[in-house]
Amino acid sequence: MPELERILQKITLVILDMDGVIYRGNRPIEGAARAVAFLRGLGKKVVFLTNNSENSRAYYVQKLRRMEIPVGEKDVITSGQIAADYIRRRDPQAKVFVIGGEGLVEEISSAGLRLVPPEKAAYLVVGIDQSLTYEKLKDGLRALLSGAKFIATNLDRVYPTEHGFLPGAGAIVAALERSSGRRPDVVIGKPSPHMILYVLRSLRTKPGETVIIGDQIETDIKAGKRTGLFTILVLSGVATEEDVRKIKGTKNAPDCVLGSLAEVVR
Amino acid sequence: MPELERILQKITLVILDMDGVIYRGNRPIEGAARAVAFLRGLGKKVVFLTNNSENSRAYYVQKLRRMEIPVGEKDVITSGQIAADYIRRRDPQAKVFVIGGEGLVEEISSAGLRLVPPEKAAYLVVGIDQSLTYEKLKDGLRALLSGAKFIATNLDRVYPTEHGFLPGAGAIVAALERSSGRRPDVVIGKPSPHMILYVLRSLRTKPGETVIIGDQIETDIKAGKRTGLFTILVLSGVATEEDVRKIKGTKNAPDCVLGSLAEVVR
Repeated sequence: MPELERILQKITLVILDMDGVIYRGNRPIEGAARAVAFLRGLGKKVVFLTNNSENSRAYYVQKLRRMEIPVGEKDVITSGQIAADYIRRRDPQAKVFVIGGEGLVEEISSAGLRLVPPEKAAYLVVGIDQSLTYEKLKDGLRALLSGAKFIATNLDRVYPTEHGFLPGAGAIVAALERSSGRRPDVVIGKPSPHMILYVLRSLRTKPGETVIIGDQIETDIKAGKRTGLFTILVLSGVATEEDVRKIKGTKNAPDCVLGSLAEVVR
Repeated sequence: MPELERILQKITLVILDMDGVIYRGNRPIEGAARAVAFLRGLGKKVVFLTNNSENSRAYYVQKLRRMEIPVGEKDVITSGQIAADYIRRRDPQAKVFVIGGEGLVEEISSAGLRLVPPEKAAYLVVGIDQSLTYEKLKDGLRALLSGAKFIATNLDRVYPTEHGFLPGAGAIVAALERSSGRRPDVVIGKPSPHMILYVLRSLRTKPGETVIIGDQIETDIKAGKRTGLFTILVLSGVATEEDVRKIKGTKNAPDCVLGSLAEVVR
């Protein structure tokens, strides 16, 4: 694995996607915790990233700790948090209507943004919402037809759980796109660069010293390519060996492919 | 209005779209009831059609009667009814999972089809569902990933009510399309020809003796053009004068444009 060696020598920061890399649903992926400890033992900073905006950072801290990966809130980055940060930097008092989980609502509130009814919103933020109802779609459409900026935390079509694939935020965004005739003005999650740029900025780290490790070509690897990171694809989640064959030699081919995160350990 | 005269002379059957032609939401459009009486007075058969699958035929019979338009169930055609008919003619015992309103469920059951859990369904039928939840999207995705045929009652992006535009069946279909990566195998509602062909077949009437009157170019007029009917656009619903200007001289231009249905009365 000379490519892996070369990457590990050059980098100081490891950005780890969580779903399909550390766990599938609530089941840890074998060897992931040991691999994180190994990377930290080499002196690398490890940051945990997720496109999923359903839960707060505190939730992921607990989840990773249960899987024997010690972390603090600063080590976890969610698309909900970066959506809140994106809006706050433009308008610290912004009026926001949210379709999303409790974690997203929490991130929006704790950023100091104001939660308002749809017709008063300057921003509509849409993420995965397991409590989605027709009423919420109606409200979202009303916000969009009233001119609210359309922010998607991510466009994931599905997300993998131990019970199979469930509809992702992309499905909810699609319903609003179709009815409003509008596309999101901003997409926060991978493959958009917002989350990675946030990490690089806040840790003052350069792309050339950073690797992203993820299980999806369309999100993780693309986002890494766009921001100039090293990229490692693991086959413990969505991407398959066939996907790797298809992408070989193209601009989205990862620098390195591993069966799972466990293989970073020598 | 020589074109209107010419059409009225040639036709024996009038297919009337309801939403935006007879009423908007629960408000009757002025002169619509008198126009229906006038057409019947000329000896024309009048049939009422809706892409909306939420309600049963019985519901529309009551609604039209309240607006002083006497009708029976045989005069009303809904996309839900034609979806049920479409499946029944292929498999009279078909196992079906429904995302839709009570009217759609009623049409599916009364056609003798069997309502089953998503993973057992040979057909997934999707219509507008004001009780939509994330659970239903999850079930719909499960049915599609298990290989169920994907039937959309219609693809309307929105529907107009007295309270503004609400998300249509097309929004729910879009969420399932995005998450499953599949498109509907069959779309029943206009602009698809299924509903019109059903009417022509059951009344043994030729396209050249039939006119469709509707308020939407993309659904009513297109469906009429595809099936070789005369087409009249009314401007009492979705389509505007600007839409008419845009479409002038193209293959989707209606044969005749009226301000509202009231103008058919001489």
